[in-house]
Amino acid sequence: MFDRLEIIGVEGLPEVKEGDDLTDLFFTALAARKESLEDGDAVVVTSKIVAKSEGRVVLLSSVKPTPEAVRIAEETEKDPRLVQLVLNDTKEVVRVRNNNLIVETRHGFVCANAGVDESNVEEGRAVLLPKDPQRSAERLKREIEARTGKEISVLISDSFGRAFRSGVTGVCVGVSGSGVPALLDRRGEEDRFGRIARITKEAVADEVCAAANLVMGEFKESVPIAIVRGLRFKCKRGEKEEEGKEEEGKEEEGEGIKEVLFNREDDLFR
Amino acid sequence: MFDRLEIIGVEGLPEVKEGDDLTDLFFTALAARKESLEDGDAVVVTSKIVAKSEGRVVLLSSVKPTPEAVRIAEETEKDPRLVQLVLNDTKEVVRVRNNNLIVETRHGFVCANAGVDESNVEEGRAVLLPKDPQRSAERLKREIEARTGKEISVLISDSFGRAFRSGVTGVCVGVSGSGVPALLDRRGEEDRFGRIARITKEAVADEVCAAANLVMGEFKESVPIAIVRGLRFKCKRGEKEEEGKEEEGKEEEGEGIKEVLFNREDDLFR
Repeated sequence: MFDRLEIIGVEGLPEVKEGDDLTDLFFTALAARKESLEDGDAVVVTSKIVAKSEGRVVLLSSVKPTPEAVRIAEETEKDPRLVQLVLNDTKEVVRVRNNNLIVETRHGFVCANAGVDESNVEEGRAVLLPKDPQRSAERLKREIEARTGKEISVLISDSFGRAFRSGVTGVCVGVSGSGVPALLDRRGEEDRFGRIARITKEAVADEVCAAANLVMGEFKESVPIAIVRGLRFKCKRGEKEEEGKEEEGKEEEGEGIKEVLFNREDDLFR
Repeated sequence: MFDRLEIIGVEGLPEVKEGDDLTDLFFTALAARKESLEDGDAVVVTSKIVAKSEGRVVLLSSVKPTPEAVRIAEETEKDPRLVQLVLNDTKEVVRVRNNNLIVETRHGFVCANAGVDESNVEEGRAVLLPKDPQRSAERLKREIEARTGKEISVLISDSFGRAFRSGVTGVCVGVSGSGVPALLDRRGEEDRFGRIARITKEAVADEVCAAANLVMGEFKESVPIAIVRGLRFKCKRGEKEEEGKEEEGKEEEGEGIKEVLFNREDDLFR
């Protein structure tokens, strides 16, 4: 393994509005801090500013709740218009209990309120998750690489609660770049006693977003982007695989964050 | 928020055996790498080496499985002796499905196999979780602070799977030190629009262990300790609270990792 990582918070971005060029804002903030990108850097961006730049902010007064939204709103003591926004982005309601509304989003993420959030936005508005955060990650990666000539990864992060443990942690909702696999497959690796690994897959992209959350803060959004420097999963892969180059290419064009989503039959908790 | 973190992997520890002084091994490895601790450092130690030093390694041939263990072993295609070790550390079986055995451990952690693991140990043996990883963290913190005079935090980490997302991530099973709260309480903080936070608690200790996992690797255990440098949650708390000192004291003597465990009535998924 590599032995030293750095996590650099990039603060100083202005309030992001629909149509803003995030890549532009990022490089301006980076320059102000006399920082530049290096090959292999992972750039973690909060879903909130991605969503805002993509116009995923909704005026609550424009929302007409359906009877289902009204019913769930009563049960959970939420604003029925907010519940309607949640249902609009929902594939399946997973739990309604203790004022919580846990759903599977259209994207396949199981989280509270489909990621719809009223914090860090003007009163009377709510921010949705990006429409397709995986594609947002891919687009941002292309844009940043085009401007720097460096090979980097981009991760879109959000904060989700967990089953069985209290509190939110940073998780990944979109990842692009061969340096940060959504799932690192360790099958076939041997331990120090020559035995084969049984725990086989590490959710590296989620760990990178959890790490970035430590400098981002949960609420103030003063640090909406972080750089994680020193990850070398690709090099590791390169060492392991004879057909290194080809494998890297495959990884890059993989499914991205969808790799961490269970097939329904493998899901132990539904 | 602080704007730069460093995560330093500490490799070069020998194979840990019962009775070994982990603090001693840690400082030897640290010296070999010409590294020293600083005030505020968080030292993350894998539960595996803590367990080994505490003698939590069991010879499978010494285990007599009960009929219940035999039944679950058949259903999950596991070694009945291993299942017995799991049940010995189990408060409640949560799920038996698709060859998985998910339990709530005596400590209150919901995880696969009660953390009992056959990797990175000699053939025919299994490593249990530390008996009381919260106390192990407290003990290691005291020992390390006594040798350095620095104020640090210690976290014991493990890798757990998650509901609804594939792959394991680093999580915390014991934490001691005012610099890394198990849950960072953000209630009452205002966002940039002057609105009060709704997402209130961030599982900081779990995020620190996830971050450390990125340099530790899941399997080889060549890097069983990591230092996370630059966290300043305590300073942040100091700014917020009028009665700073007292609050810090309270934090330190708090419940540690038990803060992230749900009361049964708040658990949405059981």
